[in-house]
Amino acid sequence: MPLIMGIDPGLAHAGWGIVSHDGQRGRHVAHGVLNTKSNQPSSLRLQSLFKGLCSVLEEYKPESVAIETLYFAKNISSALPVAQARGVLLLAAAESGIPAFEYTPLQIKQAVVGNGRADKNQVQMMVALLLKLPESPKPDHAADALAAAICHAHTGER
Amino acid sequence: MPLIMGIDPGLAHAGWGIVSHDGQRGRHVAHGVLNTKSNQPSSLRLQSLFKGLCSVLEEYKPESVAIETLYFAKNISSALPVAQARGVLLLAAAESGIPAFEYTPLQIKQAVVGNGRADKNQVQMMVALLLKLPESPKPDHAADALAAAICHAHTGER
Repeated sequence: MPLIMGIDPGLAHAGWGIVSHDGQRGRHVAHGVLNTKSNQPSSLRLQSLFKGLCSVLEEYKPESVAIETLYFAKNISSALPVAQARGVLLLAAAESGIPAFEYTPLQIKQAVVGNGRADKNQVQMMVALLLKLPESPKPDHAADALAAAICHAHTGER
Repeated sequence: MPLIMGIDPGLAHAGWGIVSHDGQRGRHVAHGVLNTKSNQPSSLRLQSLFKGLCSVLEEYKPESVAIETLYFAKNISSALPVAQARGVLLLAAAESGIPAFEYTPLQIKQAVVGNGRADKNQVQMMVALLLKLPESPKPDHAADALAAAICHAHTGER
């Protein structure tokens, strides 16, 4: 069955999750988090994320990538480093020849919980339920990445 | 003489400029702009910027890269795509093995004009004067990139 990789973008922690789908439902394949150290120069942190994601893409060869868009109502100075990280994660997909599809947090919540205003806990519980996992995947970044993959499986072009 | 590349980050237009320096003054070597088309998916625009900058870095092999930090008091939705682009430009430096140094717009204006509150025209005139060019380099993105390189030549660790 074809695979979808979901990504929860971040600089210190970027979550990824792989789901297989048969057009109707998703099955959990793998998940994880790429971590970078805040004492490194930003160019090296971005490089570490890029190489890390390229490795996972190379290992699982998903047919598509689903990545959450950024939503920052508040603090722009915290948004910029995350956006830079998101840029290299999108690049990793492009360099791996895999199309990337972007979903807003609202679209993801709507697809996973059926309610665009759902809270984080509800999303994580539904991820476990839909993927038939005994508990919510940890850490939260990986669960959010799986939610993006489920959203693409349910709603996306593939 | 060792070379410094300055970068003015952007998604639609990213300026670059190369300056050689002998520790005291800079000499103009080359400048240009990488352009991407707004009708392409963002992952492909980021890939085009990445590959473009990697080519220029490969051609000139600068010993360091100086890149302007982003300053957005106003519209965050316009800041995020530029930050994503800046992420892949930083990555291009890292993947080329070249250290990247980051300067605020204020630091660059201070270094080039001697006044952190200088306007864009003053910066561009001083770039032409300092690099002994007959007129300001065009387009403006390239002049801003040269200003970042001059700033690093004057003030940076190398």
